[in-house]
Amino acid sequence: MDDPVLLTGAGGRVGQAILRHVGAAFDWRLLDREPLPDAKRPDGVADEDVFVADITDDEAVRDALDGCRAVVHLAGDPRPEAPWDSVLQNNIDGTQTMFEAAVETGVEKFVFASSNHAVGAYETDARTPAMYRPEDEFRLDGTELPRPSNLYGVSKATGEVLGRYYHDHHDISVVNVRIGNLTEGHPPIDYERGQAMWLSYRDCAHLFERCILADYDYEIVYGISDNDRKYYSIERAKAVLGYDPVDNSAEWRADERIDDA
Amino acid sequence: MDDPVLLTGAGGRVGQAILRHVGAAFDWRLLDREPLPDAKRPDGVADEDVFVADITDDEAVRDALDGCRAVVHLAGDPRPEAPWDSVLQNNIDGTQTMFEAAVETGVEKFVFASSNHAVGAYETDARTPAMYRPEDEFRLDGTELPRPSNLYGVSKATGEVLGRYYHDHHDISVVNVRIGNLTEGHPPIDYERGQAMWLSYRDCAHLFERCILADYDYEIVYGISDNDRKYYSIERAKAVLGYDPVDNSAEWRADERIDDA
Repeated sequence: MDDPVLLTGAGGRVGQAILRHVGAAFDWRLLDREPLPDAKRPDGVADEDVFVADITDDEAVRDALDGCRAVVHLAGDPRPEAPWDSVLQNNIDGTQTMFEAAVETGVEKFVFASSNHAVGAYETDARTPAMYRPEDEFRLDGTELPRPSNLYGVSKATGEVLGRYYHDHHDISVVNVRIGNLTEGHPPIDYERGQAMWLSYRDCAHLFERCILADYDYEIVYGISDNDRKYYSIERAKAVLGYDPVDNSAEWRADERIDDA
Repeated sequence: MDDPVLLTGAGGRVGQAILRHVGAAFDWRLLDREPLPDAKRPDGVADEDVFVADITDDEAVRDALDGCRAVVHLAGDPRPEAPWDSVLQNNIDGTQTMFEAAVETGVEKFVFASSNHAVGAYETDARTPAMYRPEDEFRLDGTELPRPSNLYGVSKATGEVLGRYYHDHHDISVVNVRIGNLTEGHPPIDYERGQAMWLSYRDCAHLFERCILADYDYEIVYGISDNDRKYYSIERAKAVLGYDPVDNSAEWRADERIDDA
């Protein structure tokens, strides 16, 4: 069996999407600040592989990472409106703690859950709502400088910069996934922007699976389904990671609320 | 008289270079964590305009900023080898405190002392030492993503992202100056890299003067003299700020150690 993969924030929405669809694909270790009920663990994960810890606790984080080949780091304050003190501690300091522990324990790959909020301010009055529509050709592709929507987005952009530093100086592969709008079952209804950055649960799980399996140096990719409406390019994710999404928000109408689970 | 300009970190090297050469050009307020001796203040600065405060103290910072038209924010841990906890507190949290107070008090311009260390890892083994030489055409121009040399550089890149957020959402003009190698009198001797990113004291003062006077939205510029050796473009600083440097490290030889003061 391959070495395990640590998933932080395992009880959150992205973590649960991953575990639901590719829970059987890896030997997981699961970390969350809250105890993880059985219903949120895939079959076969032993109690000793489930960690209750704060990601700013460097000892606890080292224990959880020791012997892992990769980490998918989702933990943090996920609220776009989170106050500065919380994102400073949970998202910025917490991510630095994770990187430091990952290089100390020899983890080879660090998959960082970044966010569309790192670049939300590209959605200027002059560009919207046109940029949300299928015929519009505006694209962000990961080479642009951050333009955060909020202080949460600042914290995610900082996580990307931390990854750049640790990759350049400590020989760890890093991929940053700027996650779009993850919703279960169907895309947001009557919300063009949400449809443009929609990420289905199964495409999310597949994308993170590819982040664990593919070879790369340092990457910033967008995590959305293959929507007709899009202003995030998924070309880099396809080319480098082998991302092959199956969903498209254009295939759903308001009367088709089918769960993909 | 125009409204005052707050200079944080006034007692440091960059602050002193500015005050020495353009100390008479503005109505200054000076802030430093340490009491500022008379020798470090330009003539005419009243005691009530000199503040001893930590930049993470939001009340003290608001008092110092209240009524200012601009702030030149230099304060922070300046050590490239500074540990994470220090740059997290002094450089990242401190800069956020400054931005928050600046928008609350209606300051119009925020001049942020960023650093060459935000992009130091572009100096790869494959590029150096060729990139330090006059005939080499490699240039960084401020549109590239950060590649920090160290955690200090991560903190400076984060300050730039904070500025992007505050500019986009709070209508404050922001310029980030990625300061090169500031040395007094003459460029570093027998150190190609230092000569390539040399910034003389008088060019430094002139550049920050332009940052206080010019009109701009959000800018990232490089702060170096007009050196023959260069891998940082100064075109943006010239075009947007009206930067017009007079020094060039190529004009100095090891036997010409003349002070520019």
